[in-house]
Amino acid sequence: MRKCYFDHVAANPLHPEALDAMMPYLREEYGNPLSLYPLGTNARSAIESARQSVAELVNVKPATIIFTSSGTEANNFALRGIARAKQAQGKHIIVSKVEHHSVLNSARYLEKNGFVVTYLPVDKHGLVTPESVAAAITDETILVSITHASREIGTIEPIKEISKITKSRSVLLHTDAIATVGNIPVDAADLGADLISMTAHQFYGPKGIGALYVREGLRIVPLIYGGIQEGGRRAGTENVAAIIGMGKAAELAKKEMAVREVHTRKLRDRLVDGVLKVPNVYLTGHPQNRLPHHASFVVEFVEGEAMLLMLSMKGIYSASGSACSSRALKSSPVLLSLGVPTALAQGSIVFSLGTGNSEEDIDYFLQEFPTIISKLREMSPFASGWGKSEEVNKCYTGGS
Amino acid sequence: MRKCYFDHVAANPLHPEALDAMMPYLREEYGNPLSLYPLGTNARSAIESARQSVAELVNVKPATIIFTSSGTEANNFALRGIARAKQAQGKHIIVSKVEHHSVLNSARYLEKNGFVVTYLPVDKHGLVTPESVAAAITDETILVSITHASREIGTIEPIKEISKITKSRSVLLHTDAIATVGNIPVDAADLGADLISMTAHQFYGPKGIGALYVREGLRIVPLIYGGIQEGGRRAGTENVAAIIGMGKAAELAKKEMAVREVHTRKLRDRLVDGVLKVPNVYLTGHPQNRLPHHASFVVEFVEGEAMLLMLSMKGIYSASGSACSSRALKSSPVLLSLGVPTALAQGSIVFSLGTGNSEEDIDYFLQEFPTIISKLREMSPFASGWGKSEEVNKCYTGGS
Repeated sequence: MRKCYFDHVAANPLHPEALDAMMPYLREEYGNPLSLYPLGTNARSAIESARQSVAELVNVKPATIIFTSSGTEANNFALRGIARAKQAQGKHIIVSKVEHHSVLNSARYLEKNGFVVTYLPVDKHGLVTPESVAAAITDETILVSITHASREIGTIEPIKEISKITKSRSVLLHTDAIATVGNIPVDAADLGADLISMTAHQFYGPKGIGALYVREGLRIVPLIYGGIQEGGRRAGTENVAAIIGMGKAAELAKKEMAVREVHTRKLRDRLVDGVLKVPNVYLTGHPQNRLPHHASFVVEFVEGEAMLLMLSMKGIYSASGSACSSRALKSSPVLLSLGVPTALAQGSIVFSLGTGNSEEDIDYFLQEFPTIISKLREMSPFASGWGKSEEVNKCYTGGS
Repeated sequence: MRKCYFDHVAANPLHPEALDAMMPYLREEYGNPLSLYPLGTNARSAIESARQSVAELVNVKPATIIFTSSGTEANNFALRGIARAKQAQGKHIIVSKVEHHSVLNSARYLEKNGFVVTYLPVDKHGLVTPESVAAAITDETILVSITHASREIGTIEPIKEISKITKSRSVLLHTDAIATVGNIPVDAADLGADLISMTAHQFYGPKGIGALYVREGLRIVPLIYGGIQEGGRRAGTENVAAIIGMGKAAELAKKEMAVREVHTRKLRDRLVDGVLKVPNVYLTGHPQNRLPHHASFVVEFVEGEAMLLMLSMKGIYSASGSACSSRALKSSPVLLSLGVPTALAQGSIVFSLGTGNSEEDIDYFLQEFPTIISKLREMSPFASGWGKSEEVNKCYTGGS
């Protein structure tokens, strides 16, 4: 049976060249980077060279890159580290309703600890409008955190426009760019964000390593205390091999980004065209302004998990919402924030493509998909009153 | 030139069998463990099997093991997570003065956030007495955190006796067992600790992975928020390969511990005997009750860093204090807490042995060491007034 891995936003395979670069640090180069003998100083140099590669990927100075153990840690670090550093100036934070759990739950933690959080609504495509950011900023606002692109609906947010507003109001801007860094061009100065979260496994680097860009001169309170690693901003013995892997993956991503983007966009468009031929299936997120390798849908009268399992039995691996919530069995708050009715949100399915996918993968999937949906609908008690419900009509007037 | 790696408390080489176990998860098994298709569920099963191995190493139930990105993160998590969970009951915490930076700096963070911290003194061998713990506990005390063994001075603390006191006073006990887990037997129930920090690279596992044991039923507030990983207690995509590596290393450590201990203890004793033949060199930490692979000294009239560099030029890799402070260029607070005079504390040197070391390594080192010390002393302006200073005499009455 053909295997079609369509879940690259959950995890990418590790690039073989990144693994090759890591191997010496999993074998003979086992020194602690803080040690003063060659085994330590070699590891230290390799880390700094990796930091350079990661910095180049987002066009910043190496010293502004702080390695973390994940994108989730980077998001926690950004929100809570800035909240602690700036709390004397104000205790108001703005996030959007389409943020990842790591941002939303960090915001909730801050709410429990004396901060006030505004959760910005989005339009039906998941867009945060710069105007809504401007309207939400008060004298107490210290930080705005808006994702660069949601991994659940693919929509790319207008960070550049939002940054003009935050700059003019002297408020810091963080963007969770986990889905974009390494996949589409991200230039920190051009975006105008003061803090940028990223993670290696979104661009064929290893798991267990991410980074936070913190604009030069900006003070941030550490999330993890201890030794003097990462300039005293993130303690703990460095995950040397993973850092090296991230550096190599960043270097490759910069070089191959355009080619990867063309490849996955073409496959993605083919997939979307095919899927939307199935009746009562709707694209979620923005129809154009979205991650090039990403397609997400809601399928009426079908449960997301049932689709996943049926597809998986055919060797097709996809997701229903974010990886972090797929086992939580809740309706996606992101989809609900777009105005997708609760019942329809249950039929969420997300495909994210990668360099390893081919046209044949898409065609194989498109051949299986309608049959699976038909079967599931035959079993569904909800499918009896066939056709668009009024609620669905309200959400998808004129389709999407 | 012979290479002698004597810095296993900074980082151990990765066991080849642990690396072999990791390789599939760095290659074809790249799924996100939360995903519902086989690539995800395989990773999930492998993680649970690794959790079982780590749990067996400290004789606890698998569900009580929470993976973290490092021992440092585990220590931060323990102190701050319990402080947050128990703050309604009291805001007093007790730590010792020989704790690692990750404990001390977490404690300082809590002090800045409304908690009161008692820093317990130690005796000249670095021992915390159970009586001092008993005397420090107040009605406000919620947590005592004492290291199982300091990586800087090797002293093994009487955790079992301390736990009797914390239990009788209904106070939680955390132990930073990063230096002991995988090196000497650690049985959670026998030790009586409610929380135990550990890290893989101390027992030939990979860097970038640690764990916190949290006694069954004990509530802890997360340090990193986001998805539902680790039972909702530690968010972020799991570092699958590193977890598998830690599991394998734990399994091997359990099996080989006794043999490793005999091997390194014998070499360590040979090293100590040889080093103490050099005049004006003193063992730090406890002479008997210490990590079997660990020897630490202060060398009068010599700077630790100069010793490290001279030894390194001979292929001998050791440390001066903890890896986290070796680049911080400060006198070790741990040594000062033993009553070592500031000037003498500058001459700190730490050797930690491993399975790869041999008698020939020790003999080679013992041949080079006296010459290096003589050379350095010839260059030292402080060595002119040769002989024990009064301060040193006070600290090392009758030698150690």
